[in-house]
Amino acid sequence: MKHLRSIDELGVAGLHRLLDLSDHMAEINRRPVPKVPALRGKTVVSLFFEDSTRTRLSFETAAKRLSADTMTFSVSTSSVNKGESLRDTIETVAAMGVDAFVVRHKSSGVPWQISNWTDAAVVNAGDGWHEHPTQALLDCYTVRTALNRPDGFNGLHIAIVGDIKHSRVARSNVWAFAALGARVTLVAPHTLLPPSLEGWPVDVAHHIDDVVDRVDVLYMLRMQRERMHEALVPSLREYTSRFGLTPDRADRLQAHALVMHPGPMNRGVEMAVDPAELPGSVITQQVTNGVSVRMAVLFDLLGSGSGLAGEAS
Amino acid sequence: MKHLRSIDELGVAGLHRLLDLSDHMAEINRRPVPKVPALRGKTVVSLFFEDSTRTRLSFETAAKRLSADTMTFSVSTSSVNKGESLRDTIETVAAMGVDAFVVRHKSSGVPWQISNWTDAAVVNAGDGWHEHPTQALLDCYTVRTALNRPDGFNGLHIAIVGDIKHSRVARSNVWAFAALGARVTLVAPHTLLPPSLEGWPVDVAHHIDDVVDRVDVLYMLRMQRERMHEALVPSLREYTSRFGLTPDRADRLQAHALVMHPGPMNRGVEMAVDPAELPGSVITQQVTNGVSVRMAVLFDLLGSGSGLAGEAS
Amino acid sequence: MKHLRSIDELGVAGLHRLLDLSDHMAEINRRPVPKVPALRGKTVVSLFFEDSTRTRLSFETAAKRLSADTMTFSVSTSSVNKGESLRDTIETVAAMGVDAFVVRHKSSGVPWQISNWTDAAVVNAGDGWHEHPTQALLDCYTVRTALNRPDGFNGLHIAIVGDIKHSRVARSNVWAFAALGARVTLVAPHTLLPPSLEGWPVDVAHHIDDVVDRVDVLYMLRMQRERMHEALVPSLREYTSRFGLTPDRADRLQAHALVMHPGPMNRGVEMAVDPAELPGSVITQQVTNGVSVRMAVLFDLLGSGSGLAGEAS
Repeated sequence: MKHLRSIDELGVAGLHRLLDLSDHMAEINRRPVPKVPALRGKTVVSLFFEDSTRTRLSFETAAKRLSADTMTFSVSTSSVNKGESLRDTIETVAAMGVDAFVVRHKSSGVPWQISNWTDAAVVNAGDGWHEHPTQALLDCYTVRTALNRPDGFNGLHIAIVGDIKHSRVARSNVWAFAALGARVTLVAPHTLLPPSLEGWPVDVAHHIDDVVDRVDVLYMLRMQRERMHEALVPSLREYTSRFGLTPDRADRLQAHALVMHPGPMNRGVEMAVDPAELPGSVITQQVTNGVSVRMAVLFDLLGSGSGLAGEAS
Repeated sequence: MKHLRSIDELGVAGLHRLLDLSDHMAEINRRPVPKVPALRGKTVVSLFFEDSTRTRLSFETAAKRLSADTMTFSVSTSSVNKGESLRDTIETVAAMGVDAFVVRHKSSGVPWQISNWTDAAVVNAGDGWHEHPTQALLDCYTVRTALNRPDGFNGLHIAIVGDIKHSRVARSNVWAFAALGARVTLVAPHTLLPPSLEGWPVDVAHHIDDVVDRVDVLYMLRMQRERMHEALVPSLREYTSRFGLTPDRADRLQAHALVMHPGPMNRGVEMAVDPAELPGSVITQQVTNGVSVRMAVLFDLLGSGSGLAGEAS
Repeated sequence: MKHLRSIDELGVAGLHRLLDLSDHMAEINRRPVPKVPALRGKTVVSLFFEDSTRTRLSFETAAKRLSADTMTFSVSTSSVNKGESLRDTIETVAAMGVDAFVVRHKSSGVPWQISNWTDAAVVNAGDGWHEHPTQALLDCYTVRTALNRPDGFNGLHIAIVGDIKHSRVARSNVWAFAALGARVTLVAPHTLLPPSLEGWPVDVAHHIDDVVDRVDVLYMLRMQRERMHEALVPSLREYTSRFGLTPDRADRLQAHALVMHPGPMNRGVEMAVDPAELPGSVITQQVTNGVSVRMAVLFDLLGSGSGLAGEAS
């Protein structure tokens, strides 16, 4: 693997390889000193053209636990604002000896462009509405461990509920869940679905009550207030009434069913119940697993095969 | 010790323990390579909801000298601005595997709230007008070393001069100085004292000339220009005439008396003399000691009892 | 060497010493693990009062490869905004135990002021229109390696083209190129030359066509749009016609001639040709060499003579 720009460029075998490697990383993270020398001397640069403290911290924690050096390139303080082209910026930073770029950008496709301009590895940390492959990986890893499914998701039914249209999480997760064998149902109003779902390995429902009592995983997406202003939903109250996870609905979940959310949550909107009171909530585990999965990705891209055995000195 | 939210939760024994430990850290800081592996693999996150470069740098220096990994969470670039609750933010960052949060917030009590939401240690780096316990520790350590008082401050007279009402430094320092045995006098106009001093182990004066020639420590607080706009003082000139340290007053200090200031100074207002020309000024030592004291706090919270002996590799 | 504030305070012998040391650093940078323990336990603070992501990242990469701890002091979040004097800020940060300050400031001379206030080493990373000594070093190192001139630049002809008047790069580079023995020609309109060139070891041309086919190095400066608004050039198109590197002119360069640029480039203005299509372009090497040269500077200032041999652990 040279880059991780989209989840499908991994292939199913690559997906399994990274999930297996994440197991190893999770074991490191449970040690008293959760640090290994695997990426000593490697430099990982966070290139965040859009704010995302949680994703940036997760990648930086992952890089530091592998002993890589980390640097942050924040667009607000960069020459990009002086009219320098993105390409010149990338080539300049790369020439300092960068091994990996972790890229967040509001435009779809930027990670692909960047990977054309540099020999460094490029990890997509979210591009527009397009892809967020490490989110899909951490979500698969969370389902795999929480439901004890190391060999795949055959027979599992996963519903993704909410604003599919504007969600890079949904795009990446649909592919990954389906590739591992799950049946995926999208639950959303027509206005929050993409214009076409041709080729998506999914079925569709228009009311959360159609799926809530039969799924193994209920994956809730963040509902942004902007969608109301854009008249895509009549009101947040209306949205909650048809698509929110309320206490009543939570009671109708199967006993073993997981509740997931990529964060940040909009409490009282899609999460109309306190996740701390949901026995099936694995929202905190998703965050914890994010570090292990990103360690796996960085090691797979930059590691030399050794360096996981010892302890960082 | 699980957290350091207020100075009084340390107790007198805890105060002495941390000051003794600070001696050890100061010795490390005098080495050619001032770094030990004590907190290798630990992650310390600076959560600064209010700017304070000096305090943040001091904590980060302390953490790095103990070989901890450090990360900064700056509120201006965080999801807190997207309406995510503080609690969700803390729980999310904590789930990545944080060992300690260093918290600065403009609202009193936030460090206590945060400590309810996470298993990580919480260090209060200043909450509103309330508390700033590491400032009190570094000030005690500075008095202890500069006046050679390892066993306590019995018989010492310390005056704290200025805007007591709005000062978290004053609140923390009064408790700490008194707990170590010092007599503490607050020197301020009525408008800059709290509405009630009931229970404060202090006496009060309303003119710096009442104390300047008899104290062992003259502790000057920063006078903020805002107080003039709020009509709490008639003018800065008037303030200086009654509460400022002028060259004349500096001449009247006892030969052994210390002059202290938590910084940043307002030169020409409370400091109407150049501290570089005051033989008793220990203002620079306060900053230097701040690193040792914060190393002691972080080690006391996160250390395993070993790791101070060797040299960081 | 105690500081690096200007290129001429190095002297010719110092210049050669740092270029020789850069060779050693470049060798480290080619290793699989490009990291040595040379500055373990040292703290390097970036004090950037003016944005420059590329320069800051280059210094931080250099510091980390020598195992120093790095911290960034960004003026926008500092007490400098609360009216604290620059001197108090520096003395405070220095008191925490800083070994070197890397300073970028829009006012000429600030690095000299700072060096009066602290025992830490001061490296000028660009002060106003005045000096940028590490840029001159990396440019000399690039010429030296690309043209294989380890003993000096006797017989080389270097043209610096563009806005000399407002360029700290030009001021530092003229001295360094000339000190190493090169003949230097400045190519600029009268409006973009300093009022007097008395004492500058240069000759002057007013059209790029006067030099393009005879120089060994063509050093292009960034042309800022502001100059047009200040009426120093009639239009950018006019500027390009007399001073830009166009494809035609690129064809007239000698086969061995180098094209250099300090970045960021203004494509279509001074660089009216794609540097990727110029065989003589060493613009990317300049950036790569910047890390080696800054490692040499930091090691020369802070190193103890050992620590380059082993590998960082």
